[in-house]
Amino acid sequence: MAKARKKTAKIAPNPAFMESTEPVELSAQDERTLGQIFNMASRLAATVERDDEPLLAIPTRSLGNVSFNEKKRILQMGSKTTSRELFNLSQAKSFMQTTLVAAGAKRLIEMGKTTSIRGLYYMLKHDVRSTKEPTFHDQGECDPIIEDCEVLLESLREELHLFADKRGDMVGNITLVDSGDEIDCSRMGSGGYAIPSIVEPSVIQFKECKADFVLHVEKNTVWQRFNEDKFWKKHNCILTHGSGQPPRGVRRLLNRLHNELGLPIFCLLDNDPWGYYIYSVVKQGSINLAYESDRMATPDAKFIGLRSRDFERCGLSDGVKISLSDVDRKRAKQIAEYPWFANKKDWRREIDTMMKNGFKLEVEALLSRSISYMTEEYVPRLLKEGDFLD
Amino acid sequence: MAKARKKTAKIAPNPAFMESTEPVELSAQDERTLGQIFNMASRLAATVERDDEPLLAIPTRSLGNVSFNEKKRILQMGSKTTSRELFNLSQAKSFMQTTLVAAGAKRLIEMGKTTSIRGLYYMLKHDVRSTKEPTFHDQGECDPIIEDCEVLLESLREELHLFADKRGDMVGNITLVDSGDEIDCSRMGSGGYAIPSIVEPSVIQFKECKADFVLHVEKNTVWQRFNEDKFWKKHNCILTHGSGQPPRGVRRLLNRLHNELGLPIFCLLDNDPWGYYIYSVVKQGSINLAYESDRMATPDAKFIGLRSRDFERCGLSDGVKISLSDVDRKRAKQIAEYPWFANKKDWRREIDTMMKNGFKLEVEALLSRSISYMTEEYVPRLLKEGDFLD
Repeated sequence: MAKARKKTAKIAPNPAFMESTEPVELSAQDERTLGQIFNMASRLAATVERDDEPLLAIPTRSLGNVSFNEKKRILQMGSKTTSRELFNLSQAKSFMQTTLVAAGAKRLIEMGKTTSIRGLYYMLKHDVRSTKEPTFHDQGECDPIIEDCEVLLESLREELHLFADKRGDMVGNITLVDSGDEIDCSRMGSGGYAIPSIVEPSVIQFKECKADFVLHVEKNTVWQRFNEDKFWKKHNCILTHGSGQPPRGVRRLLNRLHNELGLPIFCLLDNDPWGYYIYSVVKQGSINLAYESDRMATPDAKFIGLRSRDFERCGLSDGVKISLSDVDRKRAKQIAEYPWFANKKDWRREIDTMMKNGFKLEVEALLSRSISYMTEEYVPRLLKEGDFLD
Repeated sequence: MAKARKKTAKIAPNPAFMESTEPVELSAQDERTLGQIFNMASRLAATVERDDEPLLAIPTRSLGNVSFNEKKRILQMGSKTTSRELFNLSQAKSFMQTTLVAAGAKRLIEMGKTTSIRGLYYMLKHDVRSTKEPTFHDQGECDPIIEDCEVLLESLREELHLFADKRGDMVGNITLVDSGDEIDCSRMGSGGYAIPSIVEPSVIQFKECKADFVLHVEKNTVWQRFNEDKFWKKHNCILTHGSGQPPRGVRRLLNRLHNELGLPIFCLLDNDPWGYYIYSVVKQGSINLAYESDRMATPDAKFIGLRSRDFERCGLSDGVKISLSDVDRKRAKQIAEYPWFANKKDWRREIDTMMKNGFKLEVEALLSRSISYMTEEYVPRLLKEGDFLD
C-alpha cells in the first residue's frame, strides 16, 4: 500500500481554485451544503489520520436501488451503496474525480457563483501534475460524478451551484421575486418570463399569487397559442412549458408552486408514449434521478393531455393520425408496466386503447378542428368536468 | 385539357376555415400582407377567366439563385423563378398546396391569430374530397411550401402569422413593450425575458433604451454567467443568446436593435466552424433563407468570440483543446470560401490558424482560467481595445 501511495501523483492546483474572491454572504442553504461537503472531507481526513484506506460510500444510482414509494407516490432510492476507494487501481481515478467535483462545488458556493455542468467540467479539467493524464477525458466522465456527489452530499445539483440548460417559460397571475427583481408574470407580453435553471427559494420567492391552478403544456408552440389567447387570464391560472421533457428548473418550479402555494398542476401532453413518460417524470420523478424526487416530483399532478378517445370524441379527421412505430409500441408496453400506471384502471385502459387504435395524437391535432379549439373548448371542458387522468 | 379539369377533385372545405370569427382590427402590416395574398389570388382568377392555364411563378430558392450583395453586404436572392402549373400532373399537387398555405395565412391574419409551422400543417391537412389523398403527407411536405409562399408573397413568415420555435433570452438596459405589456429588461432576475418568435414592430416596440451595445452570446449557459455577473449593468449593454444557432426571432431582434436603435452588435461565439457559421448567419443571412436577409441579417455585427490565438494568449491548459474532426476541417474549408470571409485577411488568417492548431476552443474554455475571467477580463479587454473581427 505504501507503494501505491507513493505512486499517487499530486494533483496540480487548478487556476480556477486560485483566484482571489471577496467573501460573499452565504444563505442558510449554502451553509448547509458547505457543511455536507466539509463533513465528507472531514471523514476522509479522519480515515487518513487513522491510517485507514480512504473510501467513499456512494449511494447506488441504478434501477436495482430504486423503488416506488406507494405512500409518498414517488420514486425513491434505496439504501444500497458502492464503495469507492483511493487505494484501488480501478477506483482511484473516480475517487479523485469525486473529491475534485466536491471541491469545485465548495469553491462555487464560497464565491457565490454558479456554473453549468459543462462549465464545471472545464473548471476542473487539467493534467494531473507530472503526468499527461487529464482529470477528466471528457464531459461524459464528469457528469455521472456530479450525480454521485448529489447523492453523496444529499444536495440537489442546484444546491451545489450547478445549473442545467434552461428552457421553459411562464406567464400568468403570479408575481415573484427573482434575484431581487420583482416579476409580474401577468405583464410579460408574448415572450414570457424565462424560467431559470435554479429556482430554489434562495433565488426565487413567490410574492403574490392570485392564480387557481397551473396549466403545464408540453411544447412552446402550444404555450404560445394559450398565451396568445390569454387563456391564463380567462381561467385565472399560470401557464408553463418545458420544451418537451421539462428541464429540472421547470419540474422544481411546478413542485414548489404545488407544495408552497397549493396550486393544482394540470399537464397538457401528447397522446403518445413520450407524453406519458413526461407525465410520469413530472408526477413520480425519474428513475436515474430518484434521489431528488422529493423536491422534483409532484405526485398530485393531473394529466389533461390528449386521450385515445379524442379522435372520435373531438371529430378529428384521418389526417391527424400518426401511426405507432415499433419503438412506440415497445415504449408503451414498458410504461404500462410502471407500477404507478399498472395499478390504475384508467391508465391501463388509456394505454390499451392507444395500442388498439394503432395511432397517436399530438396536441396540435386539435388545430385541425379550429385554431383556438384547444384553448376555448377542449381544455375548458375537461377542467369544468374534472375529466382528467390521475 | 378539359379532361384534366374534370379530373381535378374538389378540395373539401377544412373545418379550420369554417369557424366563425369576430373581425379583428388589422395592423398596417397585416393589410399589406393580405393585399399580397389577394393580388396573387386575383392574378390566378384572371388567368382562369381568360381560360389560360393557372400558374404561379415561384422565385427559385436554390444556391444558384443566391448571391452576395457586396454593397449591402448580405446574401440576396436573384430573379430566377420556376413555374408551378395547375395543369401539369407533376406540379398540380404543389400548386394546390401553395394556394392552400396562402389561404391558411389569410385566415390566420383575418382572425388575428398566429400558429407554428407545425400548427399550420395540422390546420391544412385533410383528405381531398372523394379521395384518400391527403393535402400533405407530412410536415416535411408543408414546410418548403411555406418558404415558397414567403418569397412569392414577399412576406416574412412572421408576417404570414407563422412562428418558429422560440429559444433565446434577453436582459439589459432596455425597456420594450410586448403586446401592450411594458417589460423592463433590467429587472428580469436570473431568468430573463424570453424572446418571442415574432418580434415585428406590430408586437414589440422599443420604449426606452439606455444601452450602448448588444452582447450576443452563443449558449444559454454562458448567458447565465454574464447575467449572474451583471455584465450588462457594469458595461451598460443588452445581453442576448440564441441557444446555439439563433432562431429567427432572435436574429430579427438583433437586426432591429441595430437598425432602429443604432446599437452595435458583438457576438461571443466558439472558436470552431459552427461558431463561424452562426456569425455568418447573423451577419450576412443564410443561404436558404436569402430572401429575408434584409430584415434578418446585421452586416455590421462584429465577432468578439474565441480566437485561435487565445490558447496561448489567455494561458489556457491543454485540457481545453478539442481536436478538429474531419467534419470540422471540411466545414472550415467551406466557410473560408464564403466570399465575405475569403475577402478578409483577418478572417483568412483566423481560419488558417485554427486549422494549423488542429484544435478548436469553446467559450467555456475560459472558465478554466477562472469562473469570471470571460466576464471580467476577456470581453472587457477586447471591447476596450476594439479588438474584434469584422
